[in-house]
Amino acid sequence: MATIHIRNLEIVTLNEDGTLLHDADLVVQDGRIALLGSAPVDLQPDEVIDGRGKVAMPGLINSHCHSPMTFERGWAEDLPFDRWLNEKIWVGESALTSDDVYWGAALAACEMIRSGTVAYNDKYFYMDRVAEVVRESGMKAALTWTVFGIGEETEMGRGLAGTVEWIKEMHETGEGRVRTYLGPHSPYICPPEFLSRIVEYAHELGQGIHLHLAESEDQVKQSLERYGLRPVQHVNSLGVFDVPGGCVAAHCLAIDDTDTRILVEKDVHVPHCPITYMKLAMPFPPLEARLNAGVNVCLGTDGPASNADMDMFATLRQTALIDKYQSLNSEMIPGDTALRMATQNSARALGFDDMGVLEVGAPADLILVNIDAPHMRPTHSLIANLVHSAKGADVTDVMVDGRWLMRARELKTLDERRILYEAEQHAQSMVQRGMSQVREYKG
Amino acid sequence: MATIHIRNLEIVTLNEDGTLLHDADLVVQDGRIALLGSAPVDLQPDEVIDGRGKVAMPGLINSHCHSPMTFERGWAEDLPFDRWLNEKIWVGESALTSDDVYWGAALAACEMIRSGTVAYNDKYFYMDRVAEVVRESGMKAALTWTVFGIGEETEMGRGLAGTVEWIKEMHETGEGRVRTYLGPHSPYICPPEFLSRIVEYAHELGQGIHLHLAESEDQVKQSLERYGLRPVQHVNSLGVFDVPGGCVAAHCLAIDDTDTRILVEKDVHVPHCPITYMKLAMPFPPLEARLNAGVNVCLGTDGPASNADMDMFATLRQTALIDKYQSLNSEMIPGDTALRMATQNSARALGFDDMGVLEVGAPADLILVNIDAPHMRPTHSLIANLVHSAKGADVTDVMVDGRWLMRARELKTLDERRILYEAEQHAQSMVQRGMSQVREYKG
Repeated sequence: MATIHIRNLEIVTLNEDGTLLHDADLVVQDGRIALLGSAPVDLQPDEVIDGRGKVAMPGLINSHCHSPMTFERGWAEDLPFDRWLNEKIWVGESALTSDDVYWGAALAACEMIRSGTVAYNDKYFYMDRVAEVVRESGMKAALTWTVFGIGEETEMGRGLAGTVEWIKEMHETGEGRVRTYLGPHSPYICPPEFLSRIVEYAHELGQGIHLHLAESEDQVKQSLERYGLRPVQHVNSLGVFDVPGGCVAAHCLAIDDTDTRILVEKDVHVPHCPITYMKLAMPFPPLEARLNAGVNVCLGTDGPASNADMDMFATLRQTALIDKYQSLNSEMIPGDTALRMATQNSARALGFDDMGVLEVGAPADLILVNIDAPHMRPTHSLIANLVHSAKGADVTDVMVDGRWLMRARELKTLDERRILYEAEQHAQSMVQRGMSQVREYKG
Repeated sequence: MATIHIRNLEIVTLNEDGTLLHDADLVVQDGRIALLGSAPVDLQPDEVIDGRGKVAMPGLINSHCHSPMTFERGWAEDLPFDRWLNEKIWVGESALTSDDVYWGAALAACEMIRSGTVAYNDKYFYMDRVAEVVRESGMKAALTWTVFGIGEETEMGRGLAGTVEWIKEMHETGEGRVRTYLGPHSPYICPPEFLSRIVEYAHELGQGIHLHLAESEDQVKQSLERYGLRPVQHVNSLGVFDVPGGCVAAHCLAIDDTDTRILVEKDVHVPHCPITYMKLAMPFPPLEARLNAGVNVCLGTDGPASNADMDMFATLRQTALIDKYQSLNSEMIPGDTALRMATQNSARALGFDDMGVLEVGAPADLILVNIDAPHMRPTHSLIANLVHSAKGADVTDVMVDGRWLMRARELKTLDERRILYEAEQHAQSMVQRGMSQVREYKG
């Protein structure tokens, strides 16, 4: 692969020392970062790019989402949670086809690349179609095919056995850009025997597990009634955290100190999706206890039917703002902490442990952000400006494994015009079909 | 002035019925909206614009800000409020010059236009220089020169008598685009006699008053100790709410039912600036009681040293999100309510009562927003997408009184390159001077 030389950059490395480089060079060779600092005069790159007025930083990583759900963006607004779910989300999804998933996921990929996301942890149905999007887009992703374990008729696409076959075919394909997780929905839907079977499969396949966990006090109460254990302790007792590929437990909003200790001991990755919690009016605690205890809290958008966007810059800022407000402590979540949660911490949750930092030898998974704009001036603090003032639209260029996915705001791998058209058609048609089915059923 | 015909638009009128027009025409004549709907075939416009893939909506209005403070953006991060103020904000401001204000305000104007703001309610010092920016930019603004009333040495620029002279010169200049307010800082800084003098001036000049009010329970306690009255009731007893130009009382976060009733009875305009409250970890209640009681709550960014941006789209979204979360009720602040707070309600706070709606005869103060982008698809709800998915950068065109301030993302009235350069230089120099002075003083 080519040698790419980007000059005159500000560089936010997010390495251990938090090194910032001013007016520096960044050289990419064979898909990895070959140099940061000052390029030798005899360098003979295939491509030279002027980075003046731009900052290079690690690409953002979305640690928990349901990307195809762009098809329900803006379709379930300002409703209480149960009506949001029962009258809208599930009604639309009842008519879901594999093609809806493909176009919804493709739309999400356009949005993610445009707002500086290079990798995502996606959990949904018909994930064979999302894998197509990952391969075509050039992004990296960990993919989880959600299963319920409460009757074949609820499984969209494939049951557990089917998703196991799919994982065998899929894991570490796409030049290593596609990883997989086993995907029980949650312990409040999946019976314990079903979770145990998944744990067995995980050991057999060398895989991890990605599930929803402890989203509310109601779930805690239900779990105590059913199993005599809180959700975290219940799934821990089933071995969910001891699987070879590790565990991603989204949300963990209703946890106590014992739960927190278990999450740390078992090195569980905990995606935090504040915009979704706020929009759906879900109670959630500030992050201090979890961060201080050493939980790997990472950032995600959750699905676009609840968040309304897949823009990790929006989530980055919201994470800092809501935590300062919740804890009534403006020192919480300084910019650097927020950035690491959205890069390195998220990278670990996807199993791409070498992502999320700019250093020699790391994969060239990076973004350029325009700082030559009114809202990014003055530059007293590049970090503060990136977290609190930058927007997804400030990202000008996106590179994964040394390949441009976006150059100067132009998508290089996806046919955006066609995707905008098809995604709109499929989304409208899907929710119409869903509503007709419900009317027939009720009639 | 010219006749401008914009075709093939989606139009969000925000009129009383909430009319949305699909694939419609919008005609501007002599700075006002002349037609919405279907243009006659024999229309002979001076300019025809294809609005396909765009929505026209009223321009956003920032009801409370300190625009020159862009110069301290990112300079006072993650600090407790008292250190934020004493060690940073006032240190920088101690070196403030009239030129710093001009370039800071010019930077803010670039940022505001780029993110769809057409008018703002600005409260700061050296407001003669902000007025220059308003005249040059073509925006509309209500300007307030802040005075403290506790000794001439604290007055930046002019004391009360000076600002009164300035108001006489300034009010309703700039083709009517510049309005003014008398500007006591707040009742916790300004002595009652000083507030009374300002009330007298307001009656004499036919002016209104723009101040900070009831920002914290501490202020309530202090006011009760000093005056035996809560802040709202204290300033009410001084006649602050009874002045001819009306009163803008920013924040009003610590209020009780009696306070609320007074704010309604006196038709006080209450700017709400949630991003600043969150970043500075200030407690604030949800809006339900105030909205149900009928308070004119409008939206603002507050200063960019606390908010970090002047993007009203960010404030629009945050208003809905934080209110749903605070009240644990996802039905709070539906999209339409948020949009009206950021347009019509804010317009009233500026004294531009005819702004904030697209209807025939209204001034052509409007923006075009690109909806042909991944994060704005599908379009199940234009309103939801505008509030929860749109970003300032989606604004492509901005018009005030029928004049383009931005066309196709290009600023038409301001020299953005020079402003970026000068604002950066002045901001850096100002904070350096401020810090040197503090070192000298301490040394």
